[in-house]
Amino acid sequence: MATGSYVIGIDVGGQTTKLGVVDARGAVLAQTVIRTDNHDTVEPYIAELAEAVNKVIADAKAEGEIRGIGVGAPNGNYYTGNIESAPNLVWAHNTVEFAKLLSEALEGLPVALTNDANAAAVGEMTYGAARGMKNFIMITLGTGVGSGIVINGEVVYGHDGFAGELGHTAAVRNNGRVCGCGKTGCLETYCSATGVARTAREWLELTDEPSVLRSLDSIASKDVYDAAKDGDKLALKIFEFTGKILGRSFADFVAFSAPEAIVLFGGLARAKEFLREPIENAMNENVLPLWRNKVKIVFSQLKESDAAILGASALAWEL
Amino acid sequence: MATGSYVIGIDVGGQTTKLGVVDARGAVLAQTVIRTDNHDTVEPYIAELAEAVNKVIADAKAEGEIRGIGVGAPNGNYYTGNIESAPNLVWAHNTVEFAKLLSEALEGLPVALTNDANAAAVGEMTYGAARGMKNFIMITLGTGVGSGIVINGEVVYGHDGFAGELGHTAAVRNNGRVCGCGKTGCLETYCSATGVARTAREWLELTDEPSVLRSLDSIASKDVYDAAKDGDKLALKIFEFTGKILGRSFADFVAFSAPEAIVLFGGLARAKEFLREPIENAMNENVLPLWRNKVKIVFSQLKESDAAILGASALAWEL
Repeated sequence: MATGSYVIGIDVGGQTTKLGVVDARGAVLAQTVIRTDNHDTVEPYIAELAEAVNKVIADAKAEGEIRGIGVGAPNGNYYTGNIESAPNLVWAHNTVEFAKLLSEALEGLPVALTNDANAAAVGEMTYGAARGMKNFIMITLGTGVGSGIVINGEVVYGHDGFAGELGHTAAVRNNGRVCGCGKTGCLETYCSATGVARTAREWLELTDEPSVLRSLDSIASKDVYDAAKDGDKLALKIFEFTGKILGRSFADFVAFSAPEAIVLFGGLARAKEFLREPIENAMNENVLPLWRNKVKIVFSQLKESDAAILGASALAWEL
Repeated sequence: MATGSYVIGIDVGGQTTKLGVVDARGAVLAQTVIRTDNHDTVEPYIAELAEAVNKVIADAKAEGEIRGIGVGAPNGNYYTGNIESAPNLVWAHNTVEFAKLLSEALEGLPVALTNDANAAAVGEMTYGAARGMKNFIMITLGTGVGSGIVINGEVVYGHDGFAGELGHTAAVRNNGRVCGCGKTGCLETYCSATGVARTAREWLELTDEPSVLRSLDSIASKDVYDAAKDGDKLALKIFEFTGKILGRSFADFVAFSAPEAIVLFGGLARAKEFLREPIENAMNENVLPLWRNKVKIVFSQLKESDAAILGASALAWEL
């Protein structure tokens, strides 16, 4: 079974599914994209995905050379191979036996599944900024805040396969923002792309501070980033606030697993010139003295367009 | 090297050091106690300890049958075998090469060292409430709050050997109590034995609520426990508050490693009839829905007098 020089990486997002053929050095030899949300049920989606897989294999001239398939998907469970009620996937509001279905559609090719942040962590360890690290925490700053925890060179899945939900730890304990998960004060309500936009809207309403952001009809985190690059003081303060909340939470994560580094990935991580300093300052103020100035904050080095595929594909080497 | 039917467990506390010979079923065949604080330097202490080890071996008639020695000590580092600046040990204000020194004093018997909470976790997994569990978090509620994290059946040591300092995560982010570590709001300032006494003193001063505790000159957590057992309303509220803070923090720990259970050990854990319900309620209110009512709160079943020795000894089976 586990032979072959190439693996397939599949990144399942709410709108699109990216997939590609990857070699052992992390080069993406062929890739394509299909819609995730064209079908209300999983069967026709899997059929379309299997077809796309066969296409990229043919494009890469890798027939008979595929060792296995790695998939990163929201609420993907490594132990069961299932996607368990993922609100953002139209065909996965209940449990979907994803790995089993895809493997069956591809003549029994082995399929490993995990959530997107865990896939990113494996990708970073195999091809990216965490090469050679055995203990690190991957934080993905996108629409939400995801996390993948690596201890002794292995992703932590926990008792049930759902470990690493650090976006839903308490950043603010009282009067915190309402989170999509039903709780309040979760880290992701402050430090995701949507959290940053939320901070902007809140501060514009609560203060009179001048800002170019006032002229916009709706605000996304990208607008705050652009404003900060232009030196807008309010936008700069928003990133400082965001970094401070992140750094405070990171201090508690360090107390848990004593990682060598925390690796940041995702759309919001592009704002590294504004985030690094407040993160490092807040983290170092809030860790025990033994960790002060010792834990690295690293921004992902993976090429953005390949990263999702690479992360998922890296899982397949372990099959 | 690694043969023999027995192991030695040594628990190094600030005042006393307990040690004993343990068999594979967790029976303590012989034990003794020496003072930890009789000497200002480590050499005479190690000499005395080695003598005590030879004595318990003789008492147990286990000469030539010792597989190794496990030691639990404050700030004990599993990787280096050193105790690294432990403020509570008079001879360890700087780094002490404990494992090396003890092994040399005992003709090369292998010595494994870790901190006391990690030793307790190994003990619980080997002989106690966590038998058969591969993923759990041990929380020790004593003078401080310690923790040992087990993932996939192994204690988490992290990049530097110091993982699992959950007593120093933020229970309260703003205006929190000052902690011995130099930070504020640490879990251990609220939920250790000293934290409970602190809550009592604070509440007695801030309210007029009647309580038998008002008649005491000084208050220890044991007094609060006794008062609660007698139905004292303020004392009961103190445990409810303590349990709530613990449960809230546990919710964040669950998001990290998705454990099967959180196991509580230590003097304060004896108050389980007052702590269990508020811990469970607060934890379940603050976890993601997928973990609600799924993570067990377990109180240690190890016989208190043996537990410290058993925990440390369990380390030695892995040598």
